[in-house]
Amino acid sequence: MSESLATAVAAETTNDPSARIRHFLDTHRPSTPCLVLDLDVVGQNYRRLRAALPDARIFYAVKANPHPEVVRLLVGLGACFDVASTGEIDLCLAQGAAPETISYGNTIKKAADIAYAHARGVRLFVLDSAQDVAHLAEHAPGASVFCRVLVEADGARTPFGKKFGCAPEMAVELLREAGERGLDVRGVSFHVGSQHVDPSAWELGIARAAQVAAAGVPVGLVNLGGGFPSTYTEAVPALTEYAAAVERALERHFGAARPELIIEPGRALVGDAGMIRSEVVLVSRKSVEDTHRWVYLDVGRYNGMAECEGEAIAYRLRTAHDGGPDGPVVIAGPTCDGDDVLYQRTAYRLPLALAAGDHVDIPCTGAYTASYSSVSFNGFPPLTTHVIGAKQI
Amino acid sequence: MSESLATAVAAETTNDPSARIRHFLDTHRPSTPCLVLDLDVVGQNYRRLRAALPDARIFYAVKANPHPEVVRLLVGLGACFDVASTGEIDLCLAQGAAPETISYGNTIKKAADIAYAHARGVRLFVLDSAQDVAHLAEHAPGASVFCRVLVEADGARTPFGKKFGCAPEMAVELLREAGERGLDVRGVSFHVGSQHVDPSAWELGIARAAQVAAAGVPVGLVNLGGGFPSTYTEAVPALTEYAAAVERALERHFGAARPELIIEPGRALVGDAGMIRSEVVLVSRKSVEDTHRWVYLDVGRYNGMAECEGEAIAYRLRTAHDGGPDGPVVIAGPTCDGDDVLYQRTAYRLPLALAAGDHVDIPCTGAYTASYSSVSFNGFPPLTTHVIGAKQI
Repeated sequence: MSESLATAVAAETTNDPSARIRHFLDTHRPSTPCLVLDLDVVGQNYRRLRAALPDARIFYAVKANPHPEVVRLLVGLGACFDVASTGEIDLCLAQGAAPETISYGNTIKKAADIAYAHARGVRLFVLDSAQDVAHLAEHAPGASVFCRVLVEADGARTPFGKKFGCAPEMAVELLREAGERGLDVRGVSFHVGSQHVDPSAWELGIARAAQVAAAGVPVGLVNLGGGFPSTYTEAVPALTEYAAAVERALERHFGAARPELIIEPGRALVGDAGMIRSEVVLVSRKSVEDTHRWVYLDVGRYNGMAECEGEAIAYRLRTAHDGGPDGPVVIAGPTCDGDDVLYQRTAYRLPLALAAGDHVDIPCTGAYTASYSSVSFNGFPPLTTHVIGAKQI
Repeated sequence: MSESLATAVAAETTNDPSARIRHFLDTHRPSTPCLVLDLDVVGQNYRRLRAALPDARIFYAVKANPHPEVVRLLVGLGACFDVASTGEIDLCLAQGAAPETISYGNTIKKAADIAYAHARGVRLFVLDSAQDVAHLAEHAPGASVFCRVLVEADGARTPFGKKFGCAPEMAVELLREAGERGLDVRGVSFHVGSQHVDPSAWELGIARAAQVAAAGVPVGLVNLGGGFPSTYTEAVPALTEYAAAVERALERHFGAARPELIIEPGRALVGDAGMIRSEVVLVSRKSVEDTHRWVYLDVGRYNGMAECEGEAIAYRLRTAHDGGPDGPVVIAGPTCDGDDVLYQRTAYRLPLALAAGDHVDIPCTGAYTASYSSVSFNGFPPLTTHVIGAKQI
């Protein structure tokens, strides 16, 4: 890149994290669909989150984007890691993470996987069941544990339902049992659901943690989970609002006995650091009277856009024709699968000039895209990732 | 396998296609989760379908299970292939399929992919849009084409919505235009949706095809699509009932001008030829009052059970404790993803004795399982497939 161009691009990047990504795409012209991930934006997001919540240790939710270069960057920045499996433990260790920076954050663990993690030096585990207390006591003796409690939080774009966590009363029992079996009881975790747009949602979890503490269980640690949002089409509150809401809730429920804090951001670190470039494969109508055009992209639910299930996430779409006359569309992926439709209930409009071969750029797709890709559904390969930026870190 | 054991297993197989698979699993004990696919059952299914619909050419819907050994077996049995992408064309050719046995059955095709297919010798294409007529005329000059029409068919367990096909009036226009541009107009296709349990559903599509023919367009071919069911938990009609319903509809709508027939089975050929073996990771309750146990398996929506989305397919589940006392359960997969729940609205009961480490076998999982697997979501590898049987074919 020439120096003047670099300056221009850098200036634009300040306002729009995808400007440098677009420059990469326009100059390198990789085949589509592909995801381009800017590590500098990941680094910025990490520093902003640390500044907004200076008391919280940041455990990156590796599942959001397990690209090795993302993990390596975050190791360099001093982050810790929230992992879901032995595969993610191996990934983090291979990228230089110290085992004591890893939290085995999945409540669903085989006994053999607990033993494997313990053998690799992992010493922090979540639990939410009697079985896990027994397995951890046997296969990770003396390890530090926290219990995940259920919170019913409206307002998450991708809520968790009841899959993880238990009632606070059960958490009290489980943590007591854990202590009796020689585990190091650290406290409580909760998760308000991913992409949460209401900062007050964290209060309920903090109240639940205080309820466990009030029952006499040591709660030296509260793991606030993730849920901090990325910017899709809707406006989201500033990080400082989330921090202020957490601060007020801690003050109200813990007062002077303030616990140590952990957060597990995924989307908030990598979401807006990535952009997918796709190509229009087909624009058609189903009949001459059809009011909607169908726009078929070469990216769909099985090669990157998994979070379009139920139209949960409404991504922004950018084309070279933006600003011209537009009309209503249904947007679908390239497979022969009737469920591979991205948006048919959510009202999208795209330029009338849009045609096969045009690019459609999808910003804010750094999280929960490539890692969901199918191995080869319908014969289409998984989404390719290109990484730019931060090579010097 | 000893001869007496082989006889015993063979005898049992007659009634239950998964008996030989269970024998393989119990003797080889591969790590779970895994899919075992019995090629002999695929062969049987192919022969039964051919016998039930002797006038129809069978194009295997490769997307149902693109395992190379399945394709090679079907090449040997004389099948043709319905492909969704250039990747599937390459797969079929590599397994010995002749290009003239391949139908490019995806209405969503890049111009470059049409040119690629044509260069590899593929000469049969589906279309449902003006753009595709133009692209096919330019990049696959003289190729044979058929137009997919929309049918609104209730009764499919995994319906297609409106993603594929066009109104019959538009099909007439498109096929006329195709003929004028030098393409070889063959007829009409439709698809009633996957896993269709009502044999009369095919009549509407056949009526639509006749409507196109009545407008003066040559309809020498009717492609009846797929939708022939596999046996999950619900009873499904016999293949002969589907054949009889198709026969009656052809007689009614085409009379003596009977068209050539094509069918595109996927599930009907490979569904019951496969069984997944999973392991129970965790059994827990969310509170002491919880009426349901949560049973977490090492297989979930992102490593094989994709068709549990919306609980569309209710798979049978088998355990070693079957027949003992049971109780209601919610069943979920192993990832830290709140959507990775297999059944919470569908009423499932599992034995009270079921515990971590036990196997749960899931018959009839040969179709639309492994190929949907994510590359490594949450650090879990894609579903492994082991193939048995038919080595001699």
